[in-house]
Amino acid sequence: MTKHVFAQIGAGRIGKMHAGNLAAIPNVRIKHVVDHVPQAASALAATLGATASDIDGALGDKEVTAVIITSSTNTHADFIEAAARAGKAIFCEKPVDLTMARVETCLATVKACNVPLMIGFNRRFDPQFAALKRQLDAGVIGKTEHIVIYNRDAAPPPPGFVPTSGGLFRDMSIHDFDTARWLLGEEPSTVYAVGSNLVDPEIGAAGDIDTGTITMTTASGKHVVINTSRRSTFGYDQRLEVIGEKGLLQAGNTPITTVSASTAAGVTSSLPHYNFITRYADAFRLELAAFVKCLDTGTSPAPTGEDGRLALRLAEAANESMATGRAVKV
Amino acid sequence: MTKHVFAQIGAGRIGKMHAGNLAAIPNVRIKHVVDHVPQAASALAATLGATASDIDGALGDKEVTAVIITSSTNTHADFIEAAARAGKAIFCEKPVDLTMARVETCLATVKACNVPLMIGFNRRFDPQFAALKRQLDAGVIGKTEHIVIYNRDAAPPPPGFVPTSGGLFRDMSIHDFDTARWLLGEEPSTVYAVGSNLVDPEIGAAGDIDTGTITMTTASGKHVVINTSRRSTFGYDQRLEVIGEKGLLQAGNTPITTVSASTAAGVTSSLPHYNFITRYADAFRLELAAFVKCLDTGTSPAPTGEDGRLALRLAEAANESMATGRAVKV
Amino acid sequence: MTKHVFAQIGAGRIGKMHAGNLAAIPNVRIKHVVDHVPQAASALAATLGATASDIDGALGDKEVTAVIITSSTNTHADFIEAAARAGKAIFCEKPVDLTMARVETCLATVKACNVPLMIGFNRRFDPQFAALKRQLDAGVIGKTEHIVIYNRDAAPPPPGFVPTSGGLFRDMSIHDFDTARWLLGEEPSTVYAVGSNLVDPEIGAAGDIDTGTITMTTASGKHVVINTSRRSTFGYDQRLEVIGEKGLLQAGNTPITTVSASTAAGVTSSLPHYNFITRYADAFRLELAAFVKCLDTGTSPAPTGEDGRLALRLAEAANESMATGRAVKV
Amino acid sequence: MTKHVFAQIGAGRIGKMHAGNLAAIPNVRIKHVVDHVPQAASALAATLGATASDIDGALGDKEVTAVIITSSTNTHADFIEAAARAGKAIFCEKPVDLTMARVETCLATVKACNVPLMIGFNRRFDPQFAALKRQLDAGVIGKTEHIVIYNRDAAPPPPGFVPTSGGLFRDMSIHDFDTARWLLGEEPSTVYAVGSNLVDPEIGAAGDIDTGTITMTTASGKHVVINTSRRSTFGYDQRLEVIGEKGLLQAGNTPITTVSASTAAGVTSSLPHYNFITRYADAFRLELAAFVKCLDTGTSPAPTGEDGRLALRLAEAANESMATGRAVKV
Repeated sequence: MTKHVFAQIGAGRIGKMHAGNLAAIPNVRIKHVVDHVPQAASALAATLGATASDIDGALGDKEVTAVIITSSTNTHADFIEAAARAGKAIFCEKPVDLTMARVETCLATVKACNVPLMIGFNRRFDPQFAALKRQLDAGVIGKTEHIVIYNRDAAPPPPGFVPTSGGLFRDMSIHDFDTARWLLGEEPSTVYAVGSNLVDPEIGAAGDIDTGTITMTTASGKHVVINTSRRSTFGYDQRLEVIGEKGLLQAGNTPITTVSASTAAGVTSSLPHYNFITRYADAFRLELAAFVKCLDTGTSPAPTGEDGRLALRLAEAANESMATGRAVKV
Repeated sequence: MTKHVFAQIGAGRIGKMHAGNLAAIPNVRIKHVVDHVPQAASALAATLGATASDIDGALGDKEVTAVIITSSTNTHADFIEAAARAGKAIFCEKPVDLTMARVETCLATVKACNVPLMIGFNRRFDPQFAALKRQLDAGVIGKTEHIVIYNRDAAPPPPGFVPTSGGLFRDMSIHDFDTARWLLGEEPSTVYAVGSNLVDPEIGAAGDIDTGTITMTTASGKHVVINTSRRSTFGYDQRLEVIGEKGLLQAGNTPITTVSASTAAGVTSSLPHYNFITRYADAFRLELAAFVKCLDTGTSPAPTGEDGRLALRLAEAANESMATGRAVKV
Repeated sequence: MTKHVFAQIGAGRIGKMHAGNLAAIPNVRIKHVVDHVPQAASALAATLGATASDIDGALGDKEVTAVIITSSTNTHADFIEAAARAGKAIFCEKPVDLTMARVETCLATVKACNVPLMIGFNRRFDPQFAALKRQLDAGVIGKTEHIVIYNRDAAPPPPGFVPTSGGLFRDMSIHDFDTARWLLGEEPSTVYAVGSNLVDPEIGAAGDIDTGTITMTTASGKHVVINTSRRSTFGYDQRLEVIGEKGLLQAGNTPITTVSASTAAGVTSSLPHYNFITRYADAFRLELAAFVKCLDTGTSPAPTGEDGRLALRLAEAANESMATGRAVKV
Repeated sequence: MTKHVFAQIGAGRIGKMHAGNLAAIPNVRIKHVVDHVPQAASALAATLGATASDIDGALGDKEVTAVIITSSTNTHADFIEAAARAGKAIFCEKPVDLTMARVETCLATVKACNVPLMIGFNRRFDPQFAALKRQLDAGVIGKTEHIVIYNRDAAPPPPGFVPTSGGLFRDMSIHDFDTARWLLGEEPSTVYAVGSNLVDPEIGAAGDIDTGTITMTTASGKHVVINTSRRSTFGYDQRLEVIGEKGLLQAGNTPITTVSASTAAGVTSSLPHYNFITRYADAFRLELAAFVKCLDTGTSPAPTGEDGRLALRLAEAANESMATGRAVKV
């Protein structure tokens, strides 16, 4: 089997998690780790038997055939373009960029360079959501009529993060826009969004919301609701349900254990996972496996850059709707 | 204990159900049954040891202290006013009327006559929803942030019903508007609604929708979502959830039994109840018990006529929003 | 429809509950109430529009066609015989008697008098257990291999009750022996039982156990386990499961509501019902409806007196096994 | 951190699984793989960067400090003794041996050689059962009164396995005897067992049973029930429940996903895992992590050889009980 030699760009928390998953794939070798904090690059490189490199060193290495980009959001588009020009296959964490213009120039470059690009919309690879999708595709509930998505972080991000996040809809709901498109098999045509600052005054002070509800419709009349928040005290609230002509599919939260205690105080069972690292551990692992499998077989990976662009377009429409109080046509 | 003598106005399916519940209350006697179909009145009267009467006979009987109105929607306001003028306490099935103007004149009459009026928003008395409300009031999840309501009938109504129904939002969602107001402790201030005709072409031909999504916000920033449909193939989909600062309260569907079968085909458990008669059997019983208790103690019953009016106002706003594609300020 | 005129013998807690269910059946009239406490008989009779009578008055009334016996256990056999001799149809709460000899003479009298006799093994009429039985009979799990029954009271009985109870196996497990026989479609052939006094020292002082485990086998090799206790702090623990060649059927406890609260402390859901009055409300109602339907149609009611005898035989075998430490052949 | 150099003895299915888990521990190196099938040893050695060796070569290597024994049952005791004499720390899959005499001589050798020995009762490390145990130890349900264990394989073993298995109680229930001892904190004092051949006639032809029920009591009066079978069509049935003075702890089966489909046919949810490899994947990983942590810290691993001996003693008592129809005192 072909050995794929990777450069890992970004050695923060998510980078380390992805690197561990990548390195565990038998025909993958991570040769370079790049990070603007040299110690971070060195530390991660050491655990991987890799070298801490700068971006030119990594991309200039002819042996490197692929890169994984897990750096901060504002660097994604630049690194994607650099990697594309160097002819590397690219896996990049979501989003491509927070602005549509930059996304479009970036994707044009990727297209011109004709390299594979996969965006890390990990929900598609979650075993829960993928099982729901398989049942949907198998016709268990017939034609889709209504999709409800719950996406609530357990706890708000640190104060410094919000201003660089792009706002709730571009940061968190971007995943849900992709999930909705993936399940619908059809593009949303109207977007209506409301937002409130109920959770953390600092988020409001930074000009953002922490509680949001988005309603979308499609040309064929399907409805999508996204319920989102920066806080869900009981844990990471990640649920999906789809109503169709023949019934209801639901993917619930994933309890940490099946243990329950029945006492005079009630029947108490396990909380769900608390954050994306544990909740989506399998999804993160499986999305990289899928990417590498595409490299093995020469097939095109998905979600694509275009999926990234279309999800951002919905986030921008949600922002516009929230600002105007009107539904936005997409 | 004071004996309350009732006239039952309306002897159709819902009338029979209410009459059975009312007659089972020890200090209640149903003396008259009124229906525009004489045989219906006679048949129900016979099972109750009551007399089939016309409206004047029933309301002219000095012994009668209370009426229960379960006739067709377009007669509610007239019967309420007649009963009010006759000085009777009134329980009326929802809605007061399908038009705001008629609701307002009707409630003015009730006010002038100074009689008690209770509207049959039975969800408030459902043991599931009432238990959720008690936990909410007890502070289990702190301040409310987000309410999600599911209201889906198992099967669409017969074709002839739709034109007289007032439309999906005035007919079905009216319950959800009341539930939302009851849980919020605050009036919704914006309403946005979308609707589709996905379930039954005849509903569309009658100018109505069968699939709806309503988003509301309040002045303090709370969000409410109502997911509704004329069809839910697996049964009557009646769920509530409330997210607050400290957690999530959920009231699920009520399975008919706890029996599950685990076989090679999966783990199969019981469907929920199929219609409002069985699903809300307890709620229907408890709301009349509450009404009679108010008569016993001379306290004012709720939900009130004003609750009926405010729910209708939200339904009208939803209709306006759907027509204009804009959020409507209430 | 024939009107059935009943005498109610026994006006205690269970008597009142049965009387309410019986009186709600349209073609039933309770004409006499008999109790050794005259005030109890009078009070119940008043709510039923019946007369407080002595046993001879009740059984001597030619209009009376049926009796329901809910008096204390030690009087069951005498009242059954008296009613049988008077030619009445008989519904009697379990057990027929606590000793096999008296059961046998009593049943001989019933047989000689050729009157219908139904014993109140209410579990057979519980909608949960009946639904499980229907699935079992429908072949959902194929041939039965293993039955597990949980029967735990929420709280121990008052101290004075234990000495008259016949002991845990004859008092509580008698229901489970009947349930096992009903599900097996085959008689148990060996019985092994262990018992402990873990819950309440007064129970031990009265010579009884409060915690028991019974294992039975049948000639064809099926296994039955009964797990029982006088205490289950979280509520009335009433569960059934059956393993067969094609899978597992389970009937769980019945939560009072479907409401759950997810907070940092866990996911807390509703406790099950606390006692037999609420847990088996439907079962008690349905068993009398079944009895009256047999009277309507002239068919033989079940569970029969013979079912009562065979359940007692298993309880006696369990007692013998506990005393000897050996499995007992039945 | 000290590097632990292992010899892996046994390269079959379970050996490969353990080797993968062991090799993923950072301070572990597997240097030798031993198997009586040379190709099996070579193949596994190749994936580990290890050498295929014979037992003398592996145990004679001074660099090797520990062995993991996953060979066939009848070789465990010999390999344990050889490793003990060579001064290696030992992890051995259950059981030590199928006969008590051989277990005792083997443990005597281990004791004389003063090496650590851990037996692979993996259930203790299962996150579900461990969470239940933590709640039990934390006093959530107070003093234990009754333990019920379900242990059913999804499908019977291949025909050739049964004669070498030691029989149902020594092969499968041995895990449950250990689980019971672990939860009880007290030794069972009586054992009663029944067994049937209901699942597979070939098992009966080989002189074994495939359906078993074991009841144990302790000196303090606690009860334990083990329900076991060689077949559970819906998947691997691995459940635990403990009743105590304050309530009930339950560890349920682990569904593969949380997805449910509600259609007219019912509410269908995911089956549990099908076999021990996936169901106990975490347990297998965590037990080796625990063993290596003991090596790191110089503490004694558990479950010990003595735990293995005591579990076997209970299995032998169950066999004797089944043969005699009497409870056996241990």
